[in-house]
Amino acid sequence: MMRRGRVVLNWFESAALRGNPAGDPHERRVPVYLPPAYDAQPGRRFPVVFVLAGFTGRGRMLLNDNAWAPALDDRMDLLIARGMGQMILVMPDCLTRFGGSQYLDSTANGDYARHLVGELVPWVDATYRTQADRAHRGIAGKSSGGYGALIHGMRNADVFGAVACHSGDMCFDYCYRPDLAKFCALVDEAGGLEPWWKGFSSRIQKSKDDFLALNILGMAAAYSPNPATRPFGVDLPCDLATGEFREDVWARWLALDPLQLVERHAAALSSLRLLHIDCGTRDEWNLHLGARLLHRKLEALGVAHVHEEFDDGHMNVGYRYDVSLPRLAGALGAEP
Amino acid sequence: MMRRGRVVLNWFESAALRGNPAGDPHERRVPVYLPPAYDAQPGRRFPVVFVLAGFTGRGRMLLNDNAWAPALDDRMDLLIARGMGQMILVMPDCLTRFGGSQYLDSTANGDYARHLVGELVPWVDATYRTQADRAHRGIAGKSSGGYGALIHGMRNADVFGAVACHSGDMCFDYCYRPDLAKFCALVDEAGGLEPWWKGFSSRIQKSKDDFLALNILGMAAAYSPNPATRPFGVDLPCDLATGEFREDVWARWLALDPLQLVERHAAALSSLRLLHIDCGTRDEWNLHLGARLLHRKLEALGVAHVHEEFDDGHMNVGYRYDVSLPRLAGALGAEP
Amino acid sequence: MMRRGRVVLNWFESAALRGNPAGDPHERRVPVYLPPAYDAQPGRRFPVVFVLAGFTGRGRMLLNDNAWAPALDDRMDLLIARGMGQMILVMPDCLTRFGGSQYLDSTANGDYARHLVGELVPWVDATYRTQADRAHRGIAGKSSGGYGALIHGMRNADVFGAVACHSGDMCFDYCYRPDLAKFCALVDEAGGLEPWWKGFSSRIQKSKDDFLALNILGMAAAYSPNPATRPFGVDLPCDLATGEFREDVWARWLALDPLQLVERHAAALSSLRLLHIDCGTRDEWNLHLGARLLHRKLEALGVAHVHEEFDDGHMNVGYRYDVSLPRLAGALGAEP
Amino acid sequence: MMRRGRVVLNWFESAALRGNPAGDPHERRVPVYLPPAYDAQPGRRFPVVFVLAGFTGRGRMLLNDNAWAPALDDRMDLLIARGMGQMILVMPDCLTRFGGSQYLDSTANGDYARHLVGELVPWVDATYRTQADRAHRGIAGKSSGGYGALIHGMRNADVFGAVACHSGDMCFDYCYRPDLAKFCALVDEAGGLEPWWKGFSSRIQKSKDDFLALNILGMAAAYSPNPATRPFGVDLPCDLATGEFREDVWARWLALDPLQLVERHAAALSSLRLLHIDCGTRDEWNLHLGARLLHRKLEALGVAHVHEEFDDGHMNVGYRYDVSLPRLAGALGAEP
Repeated sequence: MMRRGRVVLNWFESAALRGNPAGDPHERRVPVYLPPAYDAQPGRRFPVVFVLAGFTGRGRMLLNDNAWAPALDDRMDLLIARGMGQMILVMPDCLTRFGGSQYLDSTANGDYARHLVGELVPWVDATYRTQADRAHRGIAGKSSGGYGALIHGMRNADVFGAVACHSGDMCFDYCYRPDLAKFCALVDEAGGLEPWWKGFSSRIQKSKDDFLALNILGMAAAYSPNPATRPFGVDLPCDLATGEFREDVWARWLALDPLQLVERHAAALSSLRLLHIDCGTRDEWNLHLGARLLHRKLEALGVAHVHEEFDDGHMNVGYRYDVSLPRLAGALGAEP
Repeated sequence: MMRRGRVVLNWFESAALRGNPAGDPHERRVPVYLPPAYDAQPGRRFPVVFVLAGFTGRGRMLLNDNAWAPALDDRMDLLIARGMGQMILVMPDCLTRFGGSQYLDSTANGDYARHLVGELVPWVDATYRTQADRAHRGIAGKSSGGYGALIHGMRNADVFGAVACHSGDMCFDYCYRPDLAKFCALVDEAGGLEPWWKGFSSRIQKSKDDFLALNILGMAAAYSPNPATRPFGVDLPCDLATGEFREDVWARWLALDPLQLVERHAAALSSLRLLHIDCGTRDEWNLHLGARLLHRKLEALGVAHVHEEFDDGHMNVGYRYDVSLPRLAGALGAEP
Repeated sequence: MMRRGRVVLNWFESAALRGNPAGDPHERRVPVYLPPAYDAQPGRRFPVVFVLAGFTGRGRMLLNDNAWAPALDDRMDLLIARGMGQMILVMPDCLTRFGGSQYLDSTANGDYARHLVGELVPWVDATYRTQADRAHRGIAGKSSGGYGALIHGMRNADVFGAVACHSGDMCFDYCYRPDLAKFCALVDEAGGLEPWWKGFSSRIQKSKDDFLALNILGMAAAYSPNPATRPFGVDLPCDLATGEFREDVWARWLALDPLQLVERHAAALSSLRLLHIDCGTRDEWNLHLGARLLHRKLEALGVAHVHEEFDDGHMNVGYRYDVSLPRLAGALGAEP
Repeated sequence: MMRRGRVVLNWFESAALRGNPAGDPHERRVPVYLPPAYDAQPGRRFPVVFVLAGFTGRGRMLLNDNAWAPALDDRMDLLIARGMGQMILVMPDCLTRFGGSQYLDSTANGDYARHLVGELVPWVDATYRTQADRAHRGIAGKSSGGYGALIHGMRNADVFGAVACHSGDMCFDYCYRPDLAKFCALVDEAGGLEPWWKGFSSRIQKSKDDFLALNILGMAAAYSPNPATRPFGVDLPCDLATGEFREDVWARWLALDPLQLVERHAAALSSLRLLHIDCGTRDEWNLHLGARLLHRKLEALGVAHVHEEFDDGHMNVGYRYDVSLPRLAGALGAEP
């Protein structure tokens, strides 16, 4: 039988999230994967990778099982059995009632960047036998998790020394903006944002439209929070009364678009030991177009990186971790 | 048995369309509906309404039969039987290989506005017993046909005295722009615009994606033609090589958006005997949002008009002619 | 310009359908296509083909226009221009409120076989310059129209001398039976057959489920009518109260399945000058499986026929008339 | 913070499954949920419920997390916090390469009934502090898991004293038979069963058609295995060469249909402390029709049971455990 690591389903009580404005719990389950050697070699320390879930996800979902796609812990066991270096994985829970925080601080959601970087990183180093420096600490994720990995690679390159971004949110003009009019229409049809929210919350089976609308609301909570508005504390990029597009709010979203941030953070990105970016060429949110535009900018800036495309859409692409995890292991000096 | 009108399936040889740049035929079938009284009262003259088909449509399709929705001629017979005034309907064919001309002149498509206004109007007046003045001549249509009705109501209010626009294209930021990224992605996936075109042309069964892409190409042919480009003679609002959005091309589209044109043409619109605008509140292209914005502008400008919404999507809403045709008949002085 | 035939949209007053039990009109529009030579050569007589529309269709729909698929009259003009023999086409209207009659007599629908064979055939021969014998009279259709063509080829081979059946209903175990449970479930969900009918009739936009349910009801009207039941006069192959499958009713359906009838009518089928059967290999109602089983039986019986498959589904396969019409023209001795 | 139970992810080495004919692993992960009191009261014994996953599922998937639907362990914690009696849950893995075993012994899959009843039951009693008798042992499941619960409630009522069957497979004429023709068609389109299997196995993203076909193959492996056939060891209810339905094979399926088995096992079912059956009224596989037919038979036989319907389809109905688990807890004498 293959040697297997194990998962510890920690409960973490977050000071950063206590009393968060969205009313979400401040006690979070943070699964940590410990590789086979962790128990076998009790004196050994390991690199660590923070793996960020996508929109409407949280760490535990990375462990969800499927008949044809291994959960993240099983995937690690298989990769390690094939020779990959052993690493610890941490799976944060930054889910909010709006579907996700984008791993940012926001007055609408709460301080999820602070929770991630200021709380979880030191807690993991204190709790597990990590190699506790940026040279041995990576960050990865898919979709909104890919966004989170990239943004923290830009802003906290002193904390994270390697980044893998799968199908990450970028080029907001292409990935979010096409859904704005539909968002307005859906909210209007429901009779306004509060009735929409009430209906959404009560529906056991969420529809495709529900996700579209929640996605825009969630991004507004992350990118254009406004504590002066009630009851959600967000500015929306369209005027719900008239239906008009709001350029001012949209500008705030764009200010958090990796495509717009890359020049400013070129030095940080250049300091990474690995900057892996990939996307499926049939991404339903057009994120492969964004990834290409980012790739061109990175090239122009001389930032070393890997840009790959694969023949698939946005969903169920966890198999891309089979590519990025070994690269992260290499970059972070993980040993078999 | 109900008294019925009849349809003449005329073939019209167009000088305006001869040698058109898209290589489309210049001989067109132009169905004309003649009401029951036309044959019964050989000395009587009638108001006339030009009815414009939507994207990928042409006049004859307005006569397509369906088990649960009468063709336009049957609809007229029924309305007249219920007391509506008798009118002639003309159903132009302005279809192009790109799916439609938007009833505009363009160097990519050819001179469809000229064909419609400069050729068909006088030909109809010469061929049939019309009341040949703008007070008795209306224009109507749905979707791209609604756009055509509105744009000619703005530009040719001396020719058309009444307008009905059903689910018409407007607020291009909401109805076309959301599809741009997907258009780029589809064309890119096909290996470029020419391979995409070749594949599209060869597919017997067109897919939903095919229509999305053709729609953008067709709108480019109508709104941003450029004879200097090969082989389609259009500028696209995204750079197919890099995927970047092209603000300059988009500005040309917006210059033909009814929402942008309304102020300039307020006087013309005010001169209409009827300006009917409606849209379904679940329009898949968000055209109800555009119609509302137009409605607000018309109100602000003091332009008399009717703005209605109905509980439906974009497709199969021919029953709205049951509302607009009687209004047109009234505005154009049609008598039973 | 290509020489073109013309379509006469006759209104036919049917004695057979007057007072039909379903309450459908007895005045029907029966389009007749006359080839180019009809007017050009006033003394010439022509073979005639009756073309039967599919479920929820009627003759006029064969003339529906589409940007990428010619209507039947245009298709004929093109085929004749390419050298096919000239023929008259007749497009009967055997639509009922249940979506179709399957071109059979039934106490629920009325006498549509009698209307077709006993009324339309002699009327066409009396009205148009046909070659009025079975050697010059064919029958063709798609889907339910293909069923109608085949069943009349079996039962009325003295009237029709050639048959083309495209994607015709057969092997009812495969094409209808899979939908029975869903039919029961939909009707039950609506609260019974009458509430379902009321809801169906009132819905402007019919859903996919609507068509599934109507299809089963329509087939019951054709295959298992029962004048003793109210209000629809049909026996259903499932007990709506308990949900149980009714073998006795199903046996009545099977008795009208071409697969079950073929042995009995082998002589009639053998007498045909053409028996053309084709189907798409991705037919959504599995009709290609039925066509293969029929083909095997015909082979075993020594009945000459053509069996072809093409790479497509069930819908929008009018282009198959480009194959069958020239064959029919040949079999019926049509000349250019 | 709420008191929480914990999950042990046991690996179980099965003698029954070693060398199974399908080549599936004999080492299985069997999650066991231990309620809060398990650790808090080390001398206490608990009732146990075996919870069976649906088709393509295994025990671990019952723990899959979702933003709006708690995993089974979280659901238990919540129910216990609200006062439900404390129970142990066991989540067997009876997945096979064909998508599932239906919890039966079969020469195609292996001995999954024996594994469940003969191995897991005694192992659980030996490993955990269970109340080790049928009065305190229940079985539950959804879909194929509901089938498994019901079949073992019939066959092994001496082992399991209470049954909850959610949306369980029954009335095979309604739930499987409608898909047979499509199965034949899909396999034929692929070029046969082996090419289909090869294609299926290689597709990262399984399609809806893939699941339909796998479902039929999986049921054949469970209901009509035949070791004499190669390479899958199953008889199919349609002849892949001719497309004909095979009544003889279908009869073998029906022999395992709960609807057919209920009379024979009436005494066993009557001995249960709970027989809970429910289904959504929009079940896509028509299982609510089957549940109603079963309900009628149980009534006629005088077998006490609960039959409930809820307004939903087949998928994502884990919230029904909120109804059945408290009933099971009551029936099995679980205490808070």
